[in-house]
Amino acid sequence: MAIETPEGYEAFTVETIKNYIASDALLAARVGGAPDQLKTVEVGDGNLNLVFIVEGPAGSLIIKQALPYVRLIGESWPLPLKRSYFEYHTLTRQAAASSDGARVPEIYAYDEANALIAMEYLSDHIILRKGFIQGIAYPRLANDLGLFLAETLFRTSDLHMDTARKKADVALYSDNVALCDITESLVFTEPYQEAELNQWTSPQLDRLVQTLRQDRDVKVAVQVMKERFTTCTQSLLHADFHSGSVMVNQADTRVIDPEFSFYGPMGFDTGALFANYFLAYFSQAGHAQQAGDRDAYQKWLLQTAIDTWATFEARFRELWHSERTGILFPRSLFEDQDDAMGSEQALTRTLRSLFVDTVGFAGTKMIRRLVGLAHVEDMESIEDPDQRARCEANALAMGRELLVSRHQFSSIGQLCDLARSIKNRGVTL
Amino acid sequence: MAIETPEGYEAFTVETIKNYIASDALLAARVGGAPDQLKTVEVGDGNLNLVFIVEGPAGSLIIKQALPYVRLIGESWPLPLKRSYFEYHTLTRQAAASSDGARVPEIYAYDEANALIAMEYLSDHIILRKGFIQGIAYPRLANDLGLFLAETLFRTSDLHMDTARKKADVALYSDNVALCDITESLVFTEPYQEAELNQWTSPQLDRLVQTLRQDRDVKVAVQVMKERFTTCTQSLLHADFHSGSVMVNQADTRVIDPEFSFYGPMGFDTGALFANYFLAYFSQAGHAQQAGDRDAYQKWLLQTAIDTWATFEARFRELWHSERTGILFPRSLFEDQDDAMGSEQALTRTLRSLFVDTVGFAGTKMIRRLVGLAHVEDMESIEDPDQRARCEANALAMGRELLVSRHQFSSIGQLCDLARSIKNRGVTL
Repeated sequence: MAIETPEGYEAFTVETIKNYIASDALLAARVGGAPDQLKTVEVGDGNLNLVFIVEGPAGSLIIKQALPYVRLIGESWPLPLKRSYFEYHTLTRQAAASSDGARVPEIYAYDEANALIAMEYLSDHIILRKGFIQGIAYPRLANDLGLFLAETLFRTSDLHMDTARKKADVALYSDNVALCDITESLVFTEPYQEAELNQWTSPQLDRLVQTLRQDRDVKVAVQVMKERFTTCTQSLLHADFHSGSVMVNQADTRVIDPEFSFYGPMGFDTGALFANYFLAYFSQAGHAQQAGDRDAYQKWLLQTAIDTWATFEARFRELWHSERTGILFPRSLFEDQDDAMGSEQALTRTLRSLFVDTVGFAGTKMIRRLVGLAHVEDMESIEDPDQRARCEANALAMGRELLVSRHQFSSIGQLCDLARSIKNRGVTL
Repeated sequence: MAIETPEGYEAFTVETIKNYIASDALLAARVGGAPDQLKTVEVGDGNLNLVFIVEGPAGSLIIKQALPYVRLIGESWPLPLKRSYFEYHTLTRQAAASSDGARVPEIYAYDEANALIAMEYLSDHIILRKGFIQGIAYPRLANDLGLFLAETLFRTSDLHMDTARKKADVALYSDNVALCDITESLVFTEPYQEAELNQWTSPQLDRLVQTLRQDRDVKVAVQVMKERFTTCTQSLLHADFHSGSVMVNQADTRVIDPEFSFYGPMGFDTGALFANYFLAYFSQAGHAQQAGDRDAYQKWLLQTAIDTWATFEARFRELWHSERTGILFPRSLFEDQDDAMGSEQALTRTLRSLFVDTVGFAGTKMIRRLVGLAHVEDMESIEDPDQRARCEANALAMGRELLVSRHQFSSIGQLCDLARSIKNRGVTL
């Protein structure tokens, strides 16, 4: 299918982006200098977009530009530029919703016609996934992400947000059809059937892939999770909350790239993060230089998972008590009737439901990264295919158990016990 | 608050509506004759709108016109005229979705500026609720409503509908904020707290009303159901599916008045209908001329509830097998992999989840009709307040049990057993 370039849209190059910057007074002032003094490099390593780093005498910035097709696949898979519009609006909403607005990059400009966002260049940060692969511990990570998730999810839900504003926002994001479709297909469907784009470490995992597609409990469970995804407008989600969407250093944590954003179930965001903690955990054996030298890091990863949920839950509880101003579980039925206990019971039930969703989506997200189209560098960078397959088989076993038995877990600690037990036992290939 | 009449809008009277009809060639042709040959009467007995019956030499029609405020309350409670737009669009969608398109009135014209729908006058029908009060059995009712609910709900869900069309439709109906707000307040909140508009048979039910507001399990449960209502975009609902929204005679059944329509949980429609069957059941003692003369009718009402679900479930199962073309539970994961059993398990789980919602919403809808603002004529028309209070107390007990114990029931037959047992025992006032 030929791509029709929308009126007024130009896909920039490392050269043409210089004149674009120069033509915008605000952006030009930020980097300083004439076009020929600007240093530009294109670093988009994701699946969809162009990403330029622009550095000038006075400063630097990032230009993220959507292409009218999926970069990973090419022009044969068109994709609406409007995803840039959703990303921009979500970045501004997340900045407003998180108490520390600096958890997302600062936005300098948004150009709707060119599907382009100019934003802060986080030159001192690296992608969290790369940190995981290198075995770097981040002391602020659990706290920063736990708070960010609790605040952005609580404050965009019917527990807090004005209902008319929320309904208008649900309508706005309903148009992010194409990006939801990618998730509906690549996360919830194709890994469980023959599909041209599926990939896995072959032949090592062939038998497990066949077993997965015949696993009735898995298939029913993943469709139940898909139903949650397509019909539950609980909160404004990032909706691609993996370790490639987080940038870190020892002193800071930022969340980027919310172009998949829409109103969905909170557990889809929390689950994605836990999936990526556990994928990183199982991949460590493939990154060890010698046996045991990643043991401490694996321990850190599991503790980080536990700490993330603890922070998330504590902040969610605080917000429940201090900012429950929406139409759900109104104070008029509980606290205002001297029934604080009723409010606590409702909170317990809400957190329980959220935890079950989190576990189910975590399992779903792990599986799709092992046998679907888009894999994770944690595993892909393990060169020895036998070693990689062992790591992946363990992760796949965990993903399956989280998805199918999501109602049987009661804490992240139990998930960590499961991860350790699968690692120690090892899945037979 | 003063109501600003929108540009181009005119609230008609029995006189001015005649010239309006005459000025529209299609409508004029349908009724025939000059304005002064038309017989008009205003019969709106609902809470919100004007309803004119127009009869002329050649035929008749109904004009339903929205007022810019809640008729039951007055100009102090403004209400957007746009509800007429949603009603019109839902009537056309329901006509298309139900195999027998004649389950909704035929639409002759829609005038957006005047918030007015011209439609078929069902002169041979009466409102189902009035039939219930008179003790009239309708042999087609269970079958007609079971089919209508199964078809309209299945075919507007992600089990069937194209996902891009559905997401656009979810966005469209997200603007029906004001009508959703009425439900959120009057159904899910106010009955459980002090609120100016609450009414109940006093002093007979005073103690039960106080008990209800202190009933922690009820309050938590009703907020969980409210969360389903506000965050679950499963299907295009009628959203006010009570026995006042159904017109009947011995040979026909029609569903009217979907102005509350939006994308919500299927069980909200099915639950509303069962709530009204059971409200009618408990009210019969108040309509008996002598002891026992409504026993047979009560039996018919319970059998009708059982038959309605049986038809609904059978048709839903058929559609699951023949029209499951949407993104949920795709055949590619089940039937196409020779795994019909997986599809059956998923169907069982889907029906189970829908049944639990149905029971929970039925309980919610019963309670709000007994202690909230809007009551039902089934009870209101019982003149002796002691007798009425006995009927209402029984219905209230059933509503409470359905809401709180919704997970503990497995069939409509069990709900009928519960209704009989409450009636025989009788709630102590």
